[in-house]
Amino acid sequence: MTMQLTNLKVVTVTLNPALDLTGHLQILTKGTVNQVQHCALEPAGKGVNVAKVLAELGAEVTATGFLGVENQTPFCQLFERSNIKDKFIRVQGATRINVKLVESSSQVSDINFPGVSVTAAAIVEFETMLANLSIDHDVFVIAGSLPIGVTPEQCAKWISQLQKAGKKVFFDSSNAALSAGIAVQPWLIKPNDEELAQWTKDTKHAKGESMAGKSLVEIAQQLASTGISNVVVSLGADGVMWLNHEGWLQAKPPQMAIVSTVGAGDTLVAGMCWGQLNNWNKKQTLGFATALSALAVTQVGVGVEDINEVITMSERITIGE
Amino acid sequence: MTMQLTNLKVVTVTLNPALDLTGHLQILTKGTVNQVQHCALEPAGKGVNVAKVLAELGAEVTATGFLGVENQTPFCQLFERSNIKDKFIRVQGATRINVKLVESSSQVSDINFPGVSVTAAAIVEFETMLANLSIDHDVFVIAGSLPIGVTPEQCAKWISQLQKAGKKVFFDSSNAALSAGIAVQPWLIKPNDEELAQWTKDTKHAKGESMAGKSLVEIAQQLASTGISNVVVSLGADGVMWLNHEGWLQAKPPQMAIVSTVGAGDTLVAGMCWGQLNNWNKKQTLGFATALSALAVTQVGVGVEDINEVITMSERITIGE
Repeated sequence: MTMQLTNLKVVTVTLNPALDLTGHLQILTKGTVNQVQHCALEPAGKGVNVAKVLAELGAEVTATGFLGVENQTPFCQLFERSNIKDKFIRVQGATRINVKLVESSSQVSDINFPGVSVTAAAIVEFETMLANLSIDHDVFVIAGSLPIGVTPEQCAKWISQLQKAGKKVFFDSSNAALSAGIAVQPWLIKPNDEELAQWTKDTKHAKGESMAGKSLVEIAQQLASTGISNVVVSLGADGVMWLNHEGWLQAKPPQMAIVSTVGAGDTLVAGMCWGQLNNWNKKQTLGFATALSALAVTQVGVGVEDINEVITMSERITIGE
Repeated sequence: MTMQLTNLKVVTVTLNPALDLTGHLQILTKGTVNQVQHCALEPAGKGVNVAKVLAELGAEVTATGFLGVENQTPFCQLFERSNIKDKFIRVQGATRINVKLVESSSQVSDINFPGVSVTAAAIVEFETMLANLSIDHDVFVIAGSLPIGVTPEQCAKWISQLQKAGKKVFFDSSNAALSAGIAVQPWLIKPNDEELAQWTKDTKHAKGESMAGKSLVEIAQQLASTGISNVVVSLGADGVMWLNHEGWLQAKPPQMAIVSTVGAGDTLVAGMCWGQLNNWNKKQTLGFATALSALAVTQVGVGVEDINEVITMSERITIGE
């Protein structure tokens, strides 16, 4: 645990959380009965992951979004264990389950189940919750995909309302939700290179503009010019690029032995947010966030295993302009 | 709903319940991300199924066994909805999840996850519960497999204690648990033909006796001769054979259009139990139980859809000696 230097309070919003059911088995044979040797059932979803990392860093975190009542227990246990304030709106049904089957050859088969449908009544409840939380919280992280019943336009409206109320909104999503969110200028976005390329393609189709051949740098600059204060692009092993009013900064971690990249992007968002909560300068924030994310790929599961390792790793991050 | 004619009270014991997560998808492709189109999350396990059917018939049902706290909600919802008294012992972890992936070709791939480990402390708690329930309950249905931490010998001890206390124990299991249970003479067992053949093989190995070439009738007669009051053998589409002190009775249903055979055996046990709770004669009990089970294969999910259909079907069951 580290000490937060400001009294800024953060809310993470997970509109479409997931329960990850990971099973390890020798070999998966279709059409037969397969016995899983060992398994893990873990609460997930980008916003939930960000909340967990922030809480472990020492932040006072409130989490909201929509949670299916039928399989909420693993989430409730996580919130209690990690001291995360649970302000999720409960909806009928089960939160989506993502089954990951890992064979001894390391081949992974993903089977993603559909999740809950959010009703109009649940959306009203959520909007009231968001309005209440915005009274005494400063930073909002909205991360992940949208459930059935929530449109990209609704999500964009929530970002817009929070921004107008003077809140700093970190927004991390993809596809139509990302495009709609970008249009209302969150304070920070963190696409990875693929998501940025997809957005470019979608925008090209929508506006008839050609961005083909543009570099990631040019695309990010165009995004910044529309009024997004911070454009952070994650590049996997190549590190992180961050554009804001001070210009570009790029961070590159040393080569890591990758165990699992699950949650590495969410850990980066949490690190960027932790820098903001501590009022750190740009270089310190980027170095810390990149180190946190680099260590995340060396472990199974999301979380801060050893803060001293993160500090040591921060010193090994190469930062340039 | 029908009226129970006696005031006999029943307990179902599910030592190793399961949560069935069924997903329907076009095609399952290993090593990729597969999206399930629609899905169902259903509490299962033989004893839970028996409890559900009995409750829907109108019995006053108490259910016990071991339940993982992490994913208990679907069970709690079922118990509340079906008015089943929940006396399950809670254990750490998640109840085992059985994933069933149904492709559009109707090919089914089963992926069975390991469940909870039952601790010695939980076993003590369960034994106290069983002792308390035996004060004012008359019939006990022990059904299904054993979780990690419960041995076949422990299960057999519980059957034995209940029988000695004058309770009628219906026992439906397989493999080592079935063999151990048979040795202590439950009041009723209901193996299917495969389970009976497996038991014969195991016994042959254990005792050096040769039962090869023996018919199901001969095997059942041998079982009855050891002191098991009722040997009920389910034969799938060929119906049910029942041997007790009155001799053999065989019931055959008309040909059914099979939708799913999941839970058909449990429904048969529930029907046999319902006959006992009503003090029906042998012919009435077998006719009703066979009809209930025959209808069970025409529906998705376990339960009594229409009691009038069951009564009509009872009249179409051929009963002979």
